[in-house]
Amino acid sequence: MKVLTAEIIAIGTELLLGDIVNTNAAHLARGLASLGINTYHQQVVGDNPKRLLEALEKAYESSNLVITSGGLGPTQDDLSKEMAAQFFGLPLQEDAEARAHIEQYMHRTGRQITENNWKQALLPVGSRPLYNHNGTAPGFVVEQDERMLIMLPGPPSELIPMFDEQVIPYLQSLSDSVMLSRTLHICGTGESAVESRLHDQMEAMTNPTLAPYAKEGIVDLRITAKASSEEEAERMIQPVEVMIRDMFGDQVFGQDGQTLESVVVQLLQEKGWRVATAESCSGGWACGQIVNCPGASQVLEGGFVTYSNEAKQSILGVKKETLEQYGAVSEETAKEMALGAAQALKTQTAISITGIAGPGGGTAEKPVGTVCIGVACQGKVWTETFQFSRNREANRRLSVVRALNMLRLAILQN
Amino acid sequence: MKVLTAEIIAIGTELLLGDIVNTNAAHLARGLASLGINTYHQQVVGDNPKRLLEALEKAYESSNLVITSGGLGPTQDDLSKEMAAQFFGLPLQEDAEARAHIEQYMHRTGRQITENNWKQALLPVGSRPLYNHNGTAPGFVVEQDERMLIMLPGPPSELIPMFDEQVIPYLQSLSDSVMLSRTLHICGTGESAVESRLHDQMEAMTNPTLAPYAKEGIVDLRITAKASSEEEAERMIQPVEVMIRDMFGDQVFGQDGQTLESVVVQLLQEKGWRVATAESCSGGWACGQIVNCPGASQVLEGGFVTYSNEAKQSILGVKKETLEQYGAVSEETAKEMALGAAQALKTQTAISITGIAGPGGGTAEKPVGTVCIGVACQGKVWTETFQFSRNREANRRLSVVRALNMLRLAILQN
Repeated sequence: MKVLTAEIIAIGTELLLGDIVNTNAAHLARGLASLGINTYHQQVVGDNPKRLLEALEKAYESSNLVITSGGLGPTQDDLSKEMAAQFFGLPLQEDAEARAHIEQYMHRTGRQITENNWKQALLPVGSRPLYNHNGTAPGFVVEQDERMLIMLPGPPSELIPMFDEQVIPYLQSLSDSVMLSRTLHICGTGESAVESRLHDQMEAMTNPTLAPYAKEGIVDLRITAKASSEEEAERMIQPVEVMIRDMFGDQVFGQDGQTLESVVVQLLQEKGWRVATAESCSGGWACGQIVNCPGASQVLEGGFVTYSNEAKQSILGVKKETLEQYGAVSEETAKEMALGAAQALKTQTAISITGIAGPGGGTAEKPVGTVCIGVACQGKVWTETFQFSRNREANRRLSVVRALNMLRLAILQN
Repeated sequence: MKVLTAEIIAIGTELLLGDIVNTNAAHLARGLASLGINTYHQQVVGDNPKRLLEALEKAYESSNLVITSGGLGPTQDDLSKEMAAQFFGLPLQEDAEARAHIEQYMHRTGRQITENNWKQALLPVGSRPLYNHNGTAPGFVVEQDERMLIMLPGPPSELIPMFDEQVIPYLQSLSDSVMLSRTLHICGTGESAVESRLHDQMEAMTNPTLAPYAKEGIVDLRITAKASSEEEAERMIQPVEVMIRDMFGDQVFGQDGQTLESVVVQLLQEKGWRVATAESCSGGWACGQIVNCPGASQVLEGGFVTYSNEAKQSILGVKKETLEQYGAVSEETAKEMALGAAQALKTQTAISITGIAGPGGGTAEKPVGTVCIGVACQGKVWTETFQFSRNREANRRLSVVRALNMLRLAILQN
């Protein structure tokens, strides 16, 4: 069958109580969008058989694919599967492989199997099982009279791999066209500036399409092409990618799965250099972001959080006169912090961040959100002052993004 | 009118594409639950007039209060208000105060007013305006024939304060009972252990109710009472709170808006002590968590991230023999790291974290997830080894939680 329109139904009383956020729906929606499958409606219902049946009825009025999350647990409250079987008039029957999966999973994680667990091995007769490598509940696909139902377990750690590894390829196999996306990551220019430079192109383009997404301090541009083969889609994406790379130059720091910190770590690895950090208002987050990359230990020597003026002097060797003359939040202090960190840890590169994250501490001359950043690279130093206007946490995160980006550019220039 | 059942409709094509997560629905749901208002269904629709009308029709079949988020922007796509006016047969009319709010907001944030913006000052005749202090779009309440509609703007920075400060008190005023909650935060015991110790009580209690919520390394217990007055609700909560505090002792670290780091900062302020951090695998996150609290500068002297063995020796004075004999991930190393940090920064207290966050680096003796934590307090040192079993990031976050908790307990014992 050909999927025309999909609807997502998330099942779980904890969603209705607001105890958890419906991240599953966003993940499923993104996946469907990447396949070019339209979604016009989403629903959330509790663990209630009658309301789930109503939701299914309603969904199939305008969609021919319904994807559900949740309600496949081992307890008596979990009745999604029973309701689906009833809806399609299919009996439930034990699936031997699902039973074996449950047995293995419980054994591997050292847990006791209870009678309830075997209920999870039951699947509607004729359904296509989706085995669960990260939990006990299998998902499944039912197809009947041009209607498809895909039921997935609720925990994101089970749903996400099952959807990405089993459902996406299956839905892809039903389609006669391929959707391919390339996302370019940009740092150093704002979302509205990116949008205004690309506005006309974005409006005019239909295939491939071009869409911007702003995160903190970073703008993503996603190019998506629909074609009859992956090669053709790639050929359609190519010229748009080249245009954007030409337009934004070294503000484009990476693509797809790359992050700012992973790019910085990779550049340092290529040079064989190490990095040190010296942070004040960001309080260690810049260092923590670098540690996020599994290869960090090869390039990160260490870091300092010098929150007090005394620590800036005793640990990083910032001069007393510099602090007195220019203040702790100044490019002069940022410069000495970066050089001091590189010297203390004998690294080729270092970054420093000193600023007023808020809510208090601002002055007329240096209002809340003023952040000075320094980058040392092979003995040279760059400094820059930024004026952020978010809350304390966001100002701190933006500082980290801009510091990592300055380090990236400094390495590229050496 | 009396609100019996509510339904939440989130409006926005970006939700259907999965570009943003529906955190608004969770916030609204939690607020409704706190008022004792039941919600059995949620919907998401795009910026599409026909489908919004269908969603409203469907919602009022089983609910008498509908709360929407989004679709109140200044562009032509934003038609929520027009559809609501049509649904209730009410004309739109300019609200002078809403117009003044828009003018002031645009002026304050230095933006140009366009003709579109005045569209946002239109409200259905007879509706109750909800003025927006964080953006331009006002929300509003319409009541007609025992049906209520509350429309709120989409950006969480506008919706959350409008809902918390205006909608919650209004809905509360319609009710003849009061809901009051107290949340106790627990660290040092797992969710399943908490649940099994309280299982019978939770099952038996109806008013007040008791419900557990697990976060990373922390279990929250929420006591909720429904009564005719706040005083009476407080009297009902009291004995349950006492029972839990008796049962879990100093594992209860705070309540309601308190966080582990805010409690630690407060304890340090009370003692007049300062703290230093020495981190390896957590890479500065422990220090960053402390900086999260606005009062941090009074108690945090600074911190070190000593990722390499050389840095552990040169900066913290960890002995070469200790590293060789016991390894970088050992309680002996953690002890010297904590003492070294306290000494370097002349603080009364210090915490240290050294571990194997994963994915690589584990051995048979010290598998991935092994983390050694040290706490120095007034010259004394405590160390402990933990075995976490999550992914790299979660293992690092759990390390920070346990380190802060050990520091809290050490301060309490001094």
